[in-house]
Amino acid sequence: MGFKEHLKRAVDDVPGAMLCTLMGHDGIAIDTYETDLAIERDVSTSTVELTSLLAQVRQSTQGLKSGNLTELVVGGQDLCAIVRPVTDEYFLALFLASGANQGKGRYVLRAISPRLVEELG
Amino acid sequence: MGFKEHLKRAVDDVPGAMLCTLMGHDGIAIDTYETDLAIERDVSTSTVELTSLLAQVRQSTQGLKSGNLTELVVGGQDLCAIVRPVTDEYFLALFLASGANQGKGRYVLRAISPRLVEELG
Repeated sequence: MGFKEHLKRAVDDVPGAMLCTLMGHDGIAIDTYETDLAIERDVSTSTVELTSLLAQVRQSTQGLKSGNLTELVVGGQDLCAIVRPVTDEYFLALFLASGANQGKGRYVLRAISPRLVEELG
Repeated sequence: MGFKEHLKRAVDDVPGAMLCTLMGHDGIAIDTYETDLAIERDVSTSTVELTSLLAQVRQSTQGLKSGNLTELVVGGQDLCAIVRPVTDEYFLALFLASGANQGKGRYVLRAISPRLVEELG
């Protein structure tokens, strides 16, 4: 099972999910799966901003005394992004339409994460 | 019912919650309720970093195309912070020990939010 299948499963399993990507902290995606709605709404360009935001959040964990980042959720009126670092180099991000089931989204990322780590070798 | 009672209720209702604050985007708190554990772990100093991080996140919502921020969750290995803007000037933040019930935390902030807005006048 390749990366794309896991990312597709995440999107398919969460009602309202539009795009799932496995991406390096440098902003370069290994693989991405997106729905027609995500293409129409041009959600993939949001991943650029998300990568830069994630870098800021990771820098702030020392001041927050939160320990290493395990999850980031940015919920907006139109779109919600759930981020889960999977290794020091890569993270998973799932974009949902607003009002979608965030809890299910977080669960699915947790569920596919170890499989992706395995495939990353 | 004053601010403190609502903040105390949020902490009391969520197992693992340690501190709840109603704070201006300028970092000045209107009121805060914290447990002995929060005082011991000096969680209140984390709110300074959180305020600065929140400003960065709000700036990035245009690039994210997420619409106005409704919720931010920063989950770390030791601590999780849930933020909910309540007005243009103020936000609620709830700090939880890692492994605490985030879903309950998000729910409680949603629940007390309209009451705090009312009291803010």
